[in-house]
Amino acid sequence: MARQRLVVVGGDAAGMSAASQVRRLRKDMDIVVFERGPHTSYAACGIPFYIGGLVADDRRLIARSPREFQEEHDIDARALTEVEALDLNRRTVRFRSVPTGDPGELAFDALLLATGTEPSLPDVPGKENRGIFVVNTLENALRLKRFLEETRPRRAVVVGSGYIGLEMAEALRCHLGMEVTVVERAPQVMKTLDPDMADSVAKALEKAGIRLFLGESLTGFELEGTRVGAVVTDRRILQTDLVILALGVRPNSKLAAEAGIPLGVQGAIRTDERMRTPFPDVWAAGDCAEVQHLVSGRPTHVALGTIANKTGRVAGISIAGGDATFPGTAGTAICRICSCEIGRTGLSEEEATSLKLPVVTATISAETKASYYPNAEPVTVKLLAEKGTGRLLGGQITGGAGAAKRIDVVATALSAGLTVQAMVDLDLAYSPPFSPVWDPVQVAARQLEKLV
Amino acid sequence: MARQRLVVVGGDAAGMSAASQVRRLRKDMDIVVFERGPHTSYAACGIPFYIGGLVADDRRLIARSPREFQEEHDIDARALTEVEALDLNRRTVRFRSVPTGDPGELAFDALLLATGTEPSLPDVPGKENRGIFVVNTLENALRLKRFLEETRPRRAVVVGSGYIGLEMAEALRCHLGMEVTVVERAPQVMKTLDPDMADSVAKALEKAGIRLFLGESLTGFELEGTRVGAVVTDRRILQTDLVILALGVRPNSKLAAEAGIPLGVQGAIRTDERMRTPFPDVWAAGDCAEVQHLVSGRPTHVALGTIANKTGRVAGISIAGGDATFPGTAGTAICRICSCEIGRTGLSEEEATSLKLPVVTATISAETKASYYPNAEPVTVKLLAEKGTGRLLGGQITGGAGAAKRIDVVATALSAGLTVQAMVDLDLAYSPPFSPVWDPVQVAARQLEKLV
Repeated sequence: MARQRLVVVGGDAAGMSAASQVRRLRKDMDIVVFERGPHTSYAACGIPFYIGGLVADDRRLIARSPREFQEEHDIDARALTEVEALDLNRRTVRFRSVPTGDPGELAFDALLLATGTEPSLPDVPGKENRGIFVVNTLENALRLKRFLEETRPRRAVVVGSGYIGLEMAEALRCHLGMEVTVVERAPQVMKTLDPDMADSVAKALEKAGIRLFLGESLTGFELEGTRVGAVVTDRRILQTDLVILALGVRPNSKLAAEAGIPLGVQGAIRTDERMRTPFPDVWAAGDCAEVQHLVSGRPTHVALGTIANKTGRVAGISIAGGDATFPGTAGTAICRICSCEIGRTGLSEEEATSLKLPVVTATISAETKASYYPNAEPVTVKLLAEKGTGRLLGGQITGGAGAAKRIDVVATALSAGLTVQAMVDLDLAYSPPFSPVWDPVQVAARQLEKLV
Repeated sequence: MARQRLVVVGGDAAGMSAASQVRRLRKDMDIVVFERGPHTSYAACGIPFYIGGLVADDRRLIARSPREFQEEHDIDARALTEVEALDLNRRTVRFRSVPTGDPGELAFDALLLATGTEPSLPDVPGKENRGIFVVNTLENALRLKRFLEETRPRRAVVVGSGYIGLEMAEALRCHLGMEVTVVERAPQVMKTLDPDMADSVAKALEKAGIRLFLGESLTGFELEGTRVGAVVTDRRILQTDLVILALGVRPNSKLAAEAGIPLGVQGAIRTDERMRTPFPDVWAAGDCAEVQHLVSGRPTHVALGTIANKTGRVAGISIAGGDATFPGTAGTAICRICSCEIGRTGLSEEEATSLKLPVVTATISAETKASYYPNAEPVTVKLLAEKGTGRLLGGQITGGAGAAKRIDVVATALSAGLTVQAMVDLDLAYSPPFSPVWDPVQVAARQLEKLV
């Protein structure tokens, strides 16, 4: 009997996590991974730090090369090979070499779609011109790095204020010393935060010398030859040497859709808790796949490396015949923008309200360490709970060094379905260099407990 | 009808937390707090940092003075007043002014014992001599500070290697530049850690230039006049100018015992989950009181500021007629010794074994940040679980900056009764400056999951 073959489409976090699990559990299975880009398994989240020069060598962002996958894991990872179509009846994928254009076809017994995302691009003319970048892939990051080195731009405009947009703004401003402007269509930065918490991020940006224009839409570009000269918004013209488009991402589910695989929320590939699509022997994982939200219990789409790794692992175990499920995401995320750390998890106030949950919130100010200890930093914690039951719904934290990773306590509590009352009782770690005697998360819980 | 009166014995964390809760909930109750020392509500945990000079002014360690309690909270806090006896039948306490010796008696309707701990002292002669200190109170810390300033000692011996002993060793070595030796009777430092994890703390001490003699007992002192000249152990004589005795603490439950209140584990005052003693209208909280262990479900005694604050709060609410319970402690603790952060929670391997729990453990090495991010520090995580059920039993973390506060995730999981499998699924926060994509705690959980 011929060896069974797993074909993976997409060779980044989810795809390679899955491939590694399958290899660990099934020595007898052929594993072929198609990746349209030149790199496999690299740290896309590291790109802003590479651009800012904190990570000097782009090779450090690559966890494993195709050759390493081949030699160490017996995984046939084919970079620069784009899958063009799936035939689910014949159980084949059709692919093409990116450099040569040579076509090919390969049969599979199991198929994993780990096609990631594609950047949302603005519907305005001129975005293909020189000096305008998206940084969704390492390849694009390398192009941007070359542009920075060759043209030494002085001014940059970042369009969009999600994690990547703000991390790029920080890199360009705080590490490369450029004049940086962020343009955001919404009335606040970081729409995963409640407006009040987003305000403190905006203040941190401004403190770092980043100009911020909220509630302002990109309408086009002015060019100097084939190179960008200005960003045009519905309010003003911003002269610039460089534009970063960071308007977010959407699931790259085109292949799946064309093959008839049902899509779900935001066009993400519909999956169950084992990351199986409704088609037999076809799985999806990572940023292209739908997952369940831990708090709302509803399908959602969250493009984060943690989810990609976890759903990839679950898909791999499932493909190999093992038992693993992905219980869902709380949308936990963290970042540092200039001197401001930001953490969030669970439902935002707007999300809770749209789910018609009776939500109560408490926001407190505290410090990251005992107040008498050197370098205690301010921290703001907001917690959300369901009125009546006291069930914790989410949390957001902003503050100085040591503030944001505390969100993990809230994320753990969400996974466990704890109430705010139970949060007050948590036996969290205290010592003056690490925390006040009541951890700021518990100070917020004590406040919120009175309201539920 | 006369106003009811609460009498609190002991004016530190537990006593003043309780008093504050009672005042918040019961404006109509008289509250009298007796404190034998000169200070109320101070941060005993801050003492090593005050000695090391990180906290310049001892007044910064005092959260609230008796006058502030009187003026802001209508709490009659009487410092330098020692309660000498309780009469539970007549419902009175007998006290005496420390400076004048004047006696007094006061009736109570409710009584809270928050008498804290007393230091365990070695049973060797000479410990009362000049140059030999315990640092259990701010008063003693001030005495030590004066001694340091007046005599500028060059060498110190710390006897005992618990949190306080090692924090004092760090203060004297790393901040004051003294030659420091730690003598510990047990074969490892920090007996709340498993021996393998304690080893890395020992290495950090040695790296900081602190000499460490394990498995070695204090047998006496050599004197130079009335001042200490050397510490004598069962193995050697250590010349020194200063000795810190840090052999741990025991519940200060003498008053309770003399009044016939039952004692429990380690001589701590027996309490229920509302911090009530078996005597009606008599509560106990803080370091003098027994509490339940969250994981073992058994009575335990843990002298930590967090527990003191929490049990004080619960006692206060209960005294005021409200509804609050203390579900128990996981013994969560954290400290930084030189460059090594240490966190622990739940049962140690020895504790689990002594409870006849079938325990499996996994210990992993990882980094605090993405490996390519600057200043990623090594971190070691050990998790313990119950074989069969997979129930998490405890965890220990050592490592560089950013390592140890991750113990809060483990502590939260213990409160929620999570399994190791559920730990793998937690949606913890990831971004390169904060964590690898799999948080080190989850890397350990993934390892342990294979063994349960």
